[in-house]
Amino acid sequence: MDSPKSGGSVDDNYGVDYVLHYKIPANEKAEAEAGYVELIKALTTVGLASEVRCASKESLFVFVKIASSELLRNQIYRSRLQDWLHGVRSASPDHDVAKTLENEPVTEAERLRLVYLMMIKPENEGGAGIMENSGKWKYVDAIFPLQNRAFNKAWISNWSGNYLLQESEIHGIREKFGENITMYFVFLRSYLRFLAIPSAVGFGAWLCLGQFSMIYAVATCLWSVIFFEYWKKKELDLAVQWGVRRVSEIQHPRPEFQWEYEKEDPVTGEALRVYPPVKRLQTQLLQVPFALACVLALGSLSLTAISLEIFINEVYNGPGKQYLTFVPTVILVVCTPIISTILMSAAKALTDRENYATVDAYHAALVQKQFVLNFMTSYMPLLFTTFVYLPFGHVLIPALDFWRRTAQAITFSKAPLATREFQINPQRISAQMFYFTVTAQIVNLATELVVPYLKQRAFAKAKEIQAKRSDEAVQDNPEETEFMKRVRNEYEMDVYDVTEDYREMVMQFGYLNLFSVAWPLAPICFLVNNWVELRSDALKITTSCRRPVPWRADSIGPWLQTLGVLSWLGSVTSSAIVFLCSRARDGERGGASNVTAWGLLLSILLVEHFYFLAQIIVRTVLDQLESPGLQKERKERFQMKRQLLQDHLGQDVADRAAAPGIEMSEKITRAALEEDARLTSIRGKVSPAEAFWQRQHGMQETIEVGRMFITQMDTKNGKPASAAQPSPRA
Amino acid sequence: MDSPKSGGSVDDNYGVDYVLHYKIPANEKAEAEAGYVELIKALTTVGLASEVRCASKESLFVFVKIASSELLRNQIYRSRLQDWLHGVRSASPDHDVAKTLENEPVTEAERLRLVYLMMIKPENEGGAGIMENSGKWKYVDAIFPLQNRAFNKAWISNWSGNYLLQESEIHGIREKFGENITMYFVFLRSYLRFLAIPSAVGFGAWLCLGQFSMIYAVATCLWSVIFFEYWKKKELDLAVQWGVRRVSEIQHPRPEFQWEYEKEDPVTGEALRVYPPVKRLQTQLLQVPFALACVLALGSLSLTAISLEIFINEVYNGPGKQYLTFVPTVILVVCTPIISTILMSAAKALTDRENYATVDAYHAALVQKQFVLNFMTSYMPLLFTTFVYLPFGHVLIPALDFWRRTAQAITFSKAPLATREFQINPQRISAQMFYFTVTAQIVNLATELVVPYLKQRAFAKAKEIQAKRSDEAVQDNPEETEFMKRVRNEYEMDVYDVTEDYREMVMQFGYLNLFSVAWPLAPICFLVNNWVELRSDALKITTSCRRPVPWRADSIGPWLQTLGVLSWLGSVTSSAIVFLCSRARDGERGGASNVTAWGLLLSILLVEHFYFLAQIIVRTVLDQLESPGLQKERKERFQMKRQLLQDHLGQDVADRAAAPGIEMSEKITRAALEEDARLTSIRGKVSPAEAFWQRQHGMQETIEVGRMFITQMDTKNGKPASAAQPSPRA
Repeated sequence: MDSPKSGGSVDDNYGVDYVLHYKIPANEKAEAEAGYVELIKALTTVGLASEVRCASKESLFVFVKIASSELLRNQIYRSRLQDWLHGVRSASPDHDVAKTLENEPVTEAERLRLVYLMMIKPENEGGAGIMENSGKWKYVDAIFPLQNRAFNKAWISNWSGNYLLQESEIHGIREKFGENITMYFVFLRSYLRFLAIPSAVGFGAWLCLGQFSMIYAVATCLWSVIFFEYWKKKELDLAVQWGVRRVSEIQHPRPEFQWEYEKEDPVTGEALRVYPPVKRLQTQLLQVPFALACVLALGSLSLTAISLEIFINEVYNGPGKQYLTFVPTVILVVCTPIISTILMSAAKALTDRENYATVDAYHAALVQKQFVLNFMTSYMPLLFTTFVYLPFGHVLIPALDFWRRTAQAITFSKAPLATREFQINPQRISAQMFYFTVTAQIVNLATELVVPYLKQRAFAKAKEIQAKRSDEAVQDNPEETEFMKRVRNEYEMDVYDVTEDYREMVMQFGYLNLFSVAWPLAPICFLVNNWVELRSDALKITTSCRRPVPWRADSIGPWLQTLGVLSWLGSVTSSAIVFLCSRARDGERGGASNVTAWGLLLSILLVEHFYFLAQIIVRTVLDQLESPGLQKERKERFQMKRQLLQDHLGQDVADRAAAPGIEMSEKITRAALEEDARLTSIRGKVSPAEAFWQRQHGMQETIEVGRMFITQMDTKNGKPASAAQPSPRA
Repeated sequence: MDSPKSGGSVDDNYGVDYVLHYKIPANEKAEAEAGYVELIKALTTVGLASEVRCASKESLFVFVKIASSELLRNQIYRSRLQDWLHGVRSASPDHDVAKTLENEPVTEAERLRLVYLMMIKPENEGGAGIMENSGKWKYVDAIFPLQNRAFNKAWISNWSGNYLLQESEIHGIREKFGENITMYFVFLRSYLRFLAIPSAVGFGAWLCLGQFSMIYAVATCLWSVIFFEYWKKKELDLAVQWGVRRVSEIQHPRPEFQWEYEKEDPVTGEALRVYPPVKRLQTQLLQVPFALACVLALGSLSLTAISLEIFINEVYNGPGKQYLTFVPTVILVVCTPIISTILMSAAKALTDRENYATVDAYHAALVQKQFVLNFMTSYMPLLFTTFVYLPFGHVLIPALDFWRRTAQAITFSKAPLATREFQINPQRISAQMFYFTVTAQIVNLATELVVPYLKQRAFAKAKEIQAKRSDEAVQDNPEETEFMKRVRNEYEMDVYDVTEDYREMVMQFGYLNLFSVAWPLAPICFLVNNWVELRSDALKITTSCRRPVPWRADSIGPWLQTLGVLSWLGSVTSSAIVFLCSRARDGERGGASNVTAWGLLLSILLVEHFYFLAQIIVRTVLDQLESPGLQKERKERFQMKRQLLQDHLGQDVADRAAAPGIEMSEKITRAALEEDARLTSIRGKVSPAEAFWQRQHGMQETIEVGRMFITQMDTKNGKPASAAQPSPRA
């Protein structure tokens, strides 16, 4: 057997590819034991070697690695062939397996992905069919690879000299964590770089133009179009460069999928399991009531909190104001997660019922619903301020009256409450924006990074203490103590989900596009935040989460569409905010507060059409620039075909078909004519076509006859040009 | 030589592929004669046989056919290989030339296209480099194939039993006239079929809802979206079915192209001639003043004519009204073509200066400019009525006053002219629409079909008479008299340009989308017109035009974009017309004429967003349905690759890489462990990883150790589970 170094495994990890955590609940021991035997057999069947160790009092660790490098090589070759068959690769791998691996060495990510697929693929596709926490495998609690500590350390320590991610780092991340996670980091890097533009514009606008500047709104709109179109090209280019283009078309079947009938795949001819799309559409229509429920639940919560907040801050003037100020925030902080959780589980249940056949389709549908929810929770307060509070502030008066009466009822006071007159305050939106860009981001960063770290520390400590006290610590082999401690530690960590990170960035992009016109310094805050985020995400993935399975990806998936929607929506809300707020502010300053409906509609219409126009122009310009990746791919394809041609046919085809030249052509023509004449003599009858083409035998005669015609045209008043065949041979 | 039947040539035409008309101007005879010799030599060099006949007193006909079927076969094979190399075909043609031709016989269109290319391709690409009317070949006046009379007769006579084009007919057209023209006929057929929907809706709206119905406007908008998206998919599907997908990427170089430097093509590695895109962009920027000039020239013409017309029809009440009514029409009829012609030649000059490298790019740029011009001439009067006359009728009063004063000045009358008070008439737009849909279409049809026929007849007659009188008729060979008469006849005919036909249909689509809400019966008129058009176009192409060169095409080209723009614009103008006209009508009837700006903007905004939403939904739904053509292509590609795999590798690769099963896997694992142990004994030192994996030898031991762990967990208050390696062999 080769040393574990070859084939992309990690030395530091004893060559372990995956760790399976197997629970042995005290009261289901017999069943768990039978399941354990099944597990080891299933692993062995697909060609995985296993070792077992005690994980804790109630669980085992099963360590898995691929049985031999020969088997790994075959798996890799097979997977690459399949990629080629599905159009992911342009050139088929070399017939010689060893040569293929030499040309394109196996990376850790490729090895780990293939081993994972060997474990989870259904049995009819040659896998072990293991699924975490479900059915036959309900005691398999976790399947995870071990962190590559050497790489992680190098990556983190690399930061000190680096402002952004270097190309070499990206290469490393791709080799270790796979394309899916690398795509996120490259996206974050691109976004971070692009943020420099609105930061500069925003700072300028803040200095010179103040809030609610139409110039800033239009600039942001243009920026978002450029960023969106740039990224679309960039991700395609990355996918091609990484050799993963069209990988999203090779989809992993969802084990939970319920099919109704089978039909033949029209392309591959394989049996395809189908769930009638009409049935799915019927379920999908439930998304409409779902969206309405979201709007209703979160909208009424927002309405309650906001009107109460306005009442307390801007109308109420009585006792205890300094404490009451926090009441709406408390209501929001308490109720939003509860409602969100309920709706999120509804979203999940709905997506389950939609019964998608592939993991990707399921994931995209879920992300879509979650986006609707996130959209509501994140943007509702700001949208409410923009489109209800600012233009139609007076509709809030009944709500404010309700709170006044409630307050009076609670305090039992008969005297009228100390209140001020209600006035619309256009600065409200800026204050909210400040909260969302600064306060919320800091809180978010803390919860994302510090909390899990502390939690994990506390957890580990507690376990240690508990174990020591009860004298129940599992005794490891002395040489393996350090390793086992690390494995236990990694097992305790959170599962990393790249979706969360994408969501955060996309929602931020939304804040920037939709509302930053109210506070033009927002992009700078985002820039700073994301600079930290780039590092904190790396820290999270390397030290506070289990190592994720290194999947491939050729795009940021459903988030791309979301970015597009937010970019468009930004053109609408920004222009509305500019129009409404600048008018409201002018009104406040004593100018005529003429918020006319047609002015609002016209400014929305103009900026939105500017957005569409910009999109067309940017797309056209970017299409002119061929991306290096696509060019490379086209070149590869072209060369592959030319190679195939040369292999099969040699150079002579090209030569044979080229222009034959006068001499050759004359010979051909003469031969053809002679053949015609021969056939004629056999048949004894000249067809009109034969007669037509036999009048002039070859080029020379055609030239001579033509010249004769030309000469005859000369005889001005003489004999008319007779076309009756003058034969040069006569 | 094979009989001319094989290889797609036409029997009736004596096997002639092309006819070249060669002028011999009386005063340049020597030069023309030298050119003639050159011509015959050039033709012979590339392998074309030629015959010469007298065409008239001052010109020759050179008849051309490919020298032998062997040469044709090679040309075809070569062209098919090139298609494959550029991704037009998914499978490479069979290595055996004869077999390839048997699998896919040569059509007339393919033969004619290749022979044409042999003649016009530059010499360095193996062609004869002949170009009509230019440079060295300035006496070559026309190059055209001869009509296939048998097919034409069958096609035309087929109509009696047919409502629309049959699939078999389409197949026939494709074989005879090539994909470019077939695409037009299929487009026309699809459009004609789709027209049934707005016709029905329009008739219903006319009966129940009257003019200016929002329901009709929204229905038309939805219809146009569906038609546009349907056609996009349909044309792709057709291209795949016809095997011409991506044909537009193999572009023919434009001989007039001026290049500045050469660079290597990044894909094919061939030398590429480049004109700096920045320079071209600079020239393209001239399109802005060009468009402004169009607006200005045609706009002021429209303003003059319309205001005069309004003055005469709605204000003037004096003498001679019945004659004066025609004055504006006469102004328009006289001036529009003049201005159009000037602008059109400006457009052509501009496009020439833009210096495109390929014929397609040049054509697309020209069509774009022509579309702007056509847009102005066709829609300006209606747009003027919608967006100026109806909402801001009073701005016309100065113009009307001007005409009043002019009229008074002309008539020298001091008494005030007999005038009525000016009132805005919302029915104006309907009258205009009626004119454009009924009158203009009939006139158009007549000019398109009857005029060329009469012209040609008269021309032929005149020539005949002239020739007879002057006794200068060319004497043909007795057997060929009939044939030569036909050739002369076809030479006299117009050149068919499919662009004209597309333009007509696209402009009609625009009328329907933009303005038909003013007169909902318009779609019915279009339906009838197009039913005739389908036949008249066939008649035109077969009997009153020279047979066109059968080019290939994978789409309707630049017209697709134009359709999209008109479809979008329709949503804007329809809603505006509905809003403005219904208000104006209500105002006329005595209701409050409250044409508010915000109402107008809101209705435009709503309908336009309905358009965008509909577009997204229709696109999503259509994307779900895989088109049969694309499916076929994917299947072919997949099977080709699988075939290649099987050829190269045999079945054993799949077997080798499948799950090895327990027994095999056990053997592999054991062998790997033994190899490790052997290496260890050589080295004399056990690495930690080796030690880790050697604790359990094979599946059975892993199972036993695991079970032991599980059992030990049972001893509840006894000895803690010791993970210190219990060896089953101890």
